[in-house]
Amino acid sequence: MPQTVITLATRGQGLYEFTDQAAQFTRTAAGGGEGLLTVFVRHTSCSLLIQENADPDVKTDLNAFFRRLVPPCSDPSMRWIVHTTEGPDDMPAHIKAALTQVSIGIPVMNGRLALGTWQGIYLFEHRDRPHRREIVLHLSA
Amino acid sequence: MPQTVITLATRGQGLYEFTDQAAQFTRTAAGGGEGLLTVFVRHTSCSLLIQENADPDVKTDLNAFFRRLVPPCSDPSMRWIVHTTEGPDDMPAHIKAALTQVSIGIPVMNGRLALGTWQGIYLFEHRDRPHRREIVLHLSA
Amino acid sequence: MPQTVITLATRGQGLYEFTDQAAQFTRTAAGGGEGLLTVFVRHTSCSLLIQENADPDVKTDLNAFFRRLVPPCSDPSMRWIVHTTEGPDDMPAHIKAALTQVSIGIPVMNGRLALGTWQGIYLFEHRDRPHRREIVLHLSA
Repeated sequence: MPQTVITLATRGQGLYEFTDQAAQFTRTAAGGGEGLLTVFVRHTSCSLLIQENADPDVKTDLNAFFRRLVPPCSDPSMRWIVHTTEGPDDMPAHIKAALTQVSIGIPVMNGRLALGTWQGIYLFEHRDRPHRREIVLHLSA
Repeated sequence: MPQTVITLATRGQGLYEFTDQAAQFTRTAAGGGEGLLTVFVRHTSCSLLIQENADPDVKTDLNAFFRRLVPPCSDPSMRWIVHTTEGPDDMPAHIKAALTQVSIGIPVMNGRLALGTWQGIYLFEHRDRPHRREIVLHLSA
Repeated sequence: MPQTVITLATRGQGLYEFTDQAAQFTRTAAGGGEGLLTVFVRHTSCSLLIQENADPDVKTDLNAFFRRLVPPCSDPSMRWIVHTTEGPDDMPAHIKAALTQVSIGIPVMNGRLALGTWQGIYLFEHRDRPHRREIVLHLSA
């Protein structure tokens, strides 16, 4: 089956790894062959990243950088924001999603994701409250 | 036919939605099946975004954020820019394109784009003057 | 053969073009037909960009912008960084990679990459020291 939808439960801003789920789907769907896995997130206030999965401090620093670059609307530097009705973390979430990706294509070689040694696949949650996030996994030949 | 090129006429910086055109091409090309739509823009001073299509203020704020992060070359903070011969909006346009995407892959399920409820597909124009922008739509099996 | 891995040798931060290598692989693999080339970099401290290949000043300015937005950890503004054990250029490299892309899909028309007139494909190196970078090229039908 070349497609599936997985759901991740998030508990506030930060990076949530799902490399194992993507790898497992790929092993089954690719049957040892070559292909292209597309990972697509169906939301506009979270996004996707491929990043280092060795030192957890990298995740902490990535989250901190984006929070400094795009602070919550409650921050005085963000007074120019118009779209505030969905909470102080909503418009910054859209901006952070625009600065990262909603879709990533990963080649599959011999039935396995062609990730580098240190690469993990992450959902990047930009909202404060818990959310259930849908991710589509699609395998092309 | 798995490919087409569409042209969008832009009138200055901002987000221009073309979800309907992408959806219509997909419905015809996918024939009710599964696939992957790749959206690719053939320029270096505009880009692509998937973003919220509910509240138009989101578009306003996105445009404002990128303009604050990367102001025109006429802004004193941008005096370090070398490439100024094509106008004060050109190099900022290249930078904003680098910060977003020129290519997005969207899975197709049952002949339809697997977009989330609030996701729209936008051309993000970074130049001030009107332009005609070419976007390639490609459907893979 | 629908896949290959190419290696680029980098010598410090900046943009390294490999459009010719991608175009040559595509010509051979696509056999004059249509398809989708996916370019994927197997690292987390460099990334990919499609950008202007006409005026080399654009490369200079792009590199300068990202260095200003994300300075080395030795810069006083970056004292909040936790992950410093791999050198002052490592965590900024991860951040710059997150702000750009590790994967880009390019449609193939009549056996050729559907790039616009001014578009070139670049590896964006974010580390100071020389590195050997692996890029996977994958052609889907």
